[in-house]
Amino acid sequence: MRVTTNSPSPHHTPVVVVGAGPAGLTVGNILRAASVDCVVLETESREFIERRPRAGVIEEWAVHGLRQRGLAQNLLARAEQHSACEFRFGGERYRFSYTELTGRHHWVYPQPLLVTDLVHAYVDVRGGDARFSVRDVELHDLDTACPSVSYTCPDTAERQVLTCDFVVGADGARGVSRAVLVPEQARIARHDYGIGWLALLAEAPPSSDCVLFGVHPNGFAGHMARSPEVTRYYLQCPPGDDPENWSHDRVWSELHQRLEGAGAPPLTEGRLIEKRVLDMHDYVVEPMTYGRLFLAGDSAHLVAPIAAKGMNLALHDAFLLGDALVAYLDGGDGDGLDEYSQACLRRVWDYQEFSQWLSEVYHGTAAGDPFRAGTTFARLRRLFTSPAAAAAFAEQYLGTAEHY
Amino acid sequence: MRVTTNSPSPHHTPVVVVGAGPAGLTVGNILRAASVDCVVLETESREFIERRPRAGVIEEWAVHGLRQRGLAQNLLARAEQHSACEFRFGGERYRFSYTELTGRHHWVYPQPLLVTDLVHAYVDVRGGDARFSVRDVELHDLDTACPSVSYTCPDTAERQVLTCDFVVGADGARGVSRAVLVPEQARIARHDYGIGWLALLAEAPPSSDCVLFGVHPNGFAGHMARSPEVTRYYLQCPPGDDPENWSHDRVWSELHQRLEGAGAPPLTEGRLIEKRVLDMHDYVVEPMTYGRLFLAGDSAHLVAPIAAKGMNLALHDAFLLGDALVAYLDGGDGDGLDEYSQACLRRVWDYQEFSQWLSEVYHGTAAGDPFRAGTTFARLRRLFTSPAAAAAFAEQYLGTAEHY
Repeated sequence: MRVTTNSPSPHHTPVVVVGAGPAGLTVGNILRAASVDCVVLETESREFIERRPRAGVIEEWAVHGLRQRGLAQNLLARAEQHSACEFRFGGERYRFSYTELTGRHHWVYPQPLLVTDLVHAYVDVRGGDARFSVRDVELHDLDTACPSVSYTCPDTAERQVLTCDFVVGADGARGVSRAVLVPEQARIARHDYGIGWLALLAEAPPSSDCVLFGVHPNGFAGHMARSPEVTRYYLQCPPGDDPENWSHDRVWSELHQRLEGAGAPPLTEGRLIEKRVLDMHDYVVEPMTYGRLFLAGDSAHLVAPIAAKGMNLALHDAFLLGDALVAYLDGGDGDGLDEYSQACLRRVWDYQEFSQWLSEVYHGTAAGDPFRAGTTFARLRRLFTSPAAAAAFAEQYLGTAEHY
Repeated sequence: MRVTTNSPSPHHTPVVVVGAGPAGLTVGNILRAASVDCVVLETESREFIERRPRAGVIEEWAVHGLRQRGLAQNLLARAEQHSACEFRFGGERYRFSYTELTGRHHWVYPQPLLVTDLVHAYVDVRGGDARFSVRDVELHDLDTACPSVSYTCPDTAERQVLTCDFVVGADGARGVSRAVLVPEQARIARHDYGIGWLALLAEAPPSSDCVLFGVHPNGFAGHMARSPEVTRYYLQCPPGDDPENWSHDRVWSELHQRLEGAGAPPLTEGRLIEKRVLDMHDYVVEPMTYGRLFLAGDSAHLVAPIAAKGMNLALHDAFLLGDALVAYLDGGDGDGLDEYSQACLRRVWDYQEFSQWLSEVYHGTAAGDPFRAGTTFARLRRLFTSPAAAAAFAEQYLGTAEHY
């Protein structure tokens, strides 16, 4: 990549970042740490994005990546380190102690806390320019050396135009960045699992010291501690199911059945304060770049929450893209930008493959097909009988540190 | 299991083995080595079964199992030991040297040779009673302590009845043993891959020193050496395809495309002396026993030849069943017979699961679905970038020695 950088003007900035999620804010922070100017545009308010509930699992390599970039102070102080998960199947308990096996942990730190940290670092510490609650963002001239981004200012209702050298499209699954790409510019590969998860928050203390995965003929169930008072549960359901089909009694009856484990205390019930149905689907945009537009995070790839990989892929993109933009804008080295898409997509496809593999473990016995039930149980059993299979699973479950 | 053994008579034998394939003959040999009487019934002639082309890959634990039972002398002298396979994808070559990784080999010894050895050992060395070319075999009273097997004698055309204590149903996918089971007695779980393989024998020397797997948008292709003059090839095709759709020119054109590898010499062409279409499907019978009937080999489970597991499962069954019958008939210990079905099925389901996993590697890129192509390539690439994934794959590819 060899481009010329436009000269500064009040309405010019080297990089416009569209979207203030984990990906966009991390790119912004990396740019600001290198004294590269940029503007982050976000359609929601700062208060909103600091509270929006989302993912919570951060892989250890991503924690290191944030720490190296000075972005992990709160995370390191406050995140929980998990060391095991437990599968429940046929009334038996299969505990998978991945930290014993690998020395590595899963870090659990809710996305709103991470976003709060990243906004604070970007705006309050590094002096970054973030414009919240903007409307009608549009991208222009992406295939030229002078792209621009226009938006409506929330206070004045006036149309603003920012010219720039690069646009970072980090505005998620429903943002404008991916929407501008036509098929000739990027191919979107899609996958639909045909499965829904009823996502629940219960006002109840956790019923286990670790994450539980219930593999049951009725469908998958999940248990994840959120706080001493609140627990996240999941129940497999038909895609597009109405949460109102799930009464308090039905939810708890299914959770008890699907998460039954020999010798385990019964689940502690509580009021359900959230009930949403998530449809499990994936997509991947290839390539993740078009002209001066670089996609990052969910705008480039959606991965169903089956393996809790989404935020990790967003951070991986952001590390690569932030570093590549700095290398180019600071030193004229365009290699990182040239290789960005391919480098991201290796991890993206690897995580998509693992999510599909794990989906079969979670959902295969509930498909009503005795052959699938047999192979699914074989897949699960191998994790607890073959050290080689356990090591390979742990590597994918925890995410590899360096991605070839 | 506690049963009474009937007293001897000219028409009584402790065990009737239906089917003289690798499973049935191995059981017969184990019984004869312990001086337990039995009769092996086979609908084909001895000459026919000694020539019938079938599988050729024997896993190392199975070689050891045959050797321990005095059945591997020719095999050890004449089988080839393979140490690597090579995947070809996107014009590149990915060599997987499993022996370097594990110290273990794949043994290649065509099934007709093994059957010839087993018949010889059973009939000529151990004095076993084998009756070939019998017709209209029927099983009777399997749920009683006095089962029997009737058949028509090929010479006299007379109906014969053998009473026995146990019936070994080792008569393959199309035999009578599985056919007698009604759904209340055993469940048959089935899986259809929706894929065909055109199996070819070419009068041409092998074009590589190891097995080749071509993973190509046009479909899978395989290359396996058979002898210095003959090579086995496979081409993925629609299930039920007519071999006559595959002319000499079309076959070689597709083989060249699908097995292309950077720097590899072109395939050596030759006359096609066999062209058959195999439809890829699986089944598993659960349980593998009903009353005094014990299924073994393909009668109990069919596994598509994707991972070359079929003969290995047959031998695994036969080792367990032969030893269990001897333990019971010789010493009254029924544990092995009681546990037989479950012990076999663990390996059966494990191999079925692996065959499905490997099928996706072979066939996923040809499904016309860019998402599947992406995850398939990720699965393949991991074998060559992650030592943990490579170790887990090698274990399943070669078959675990002891099966938990």
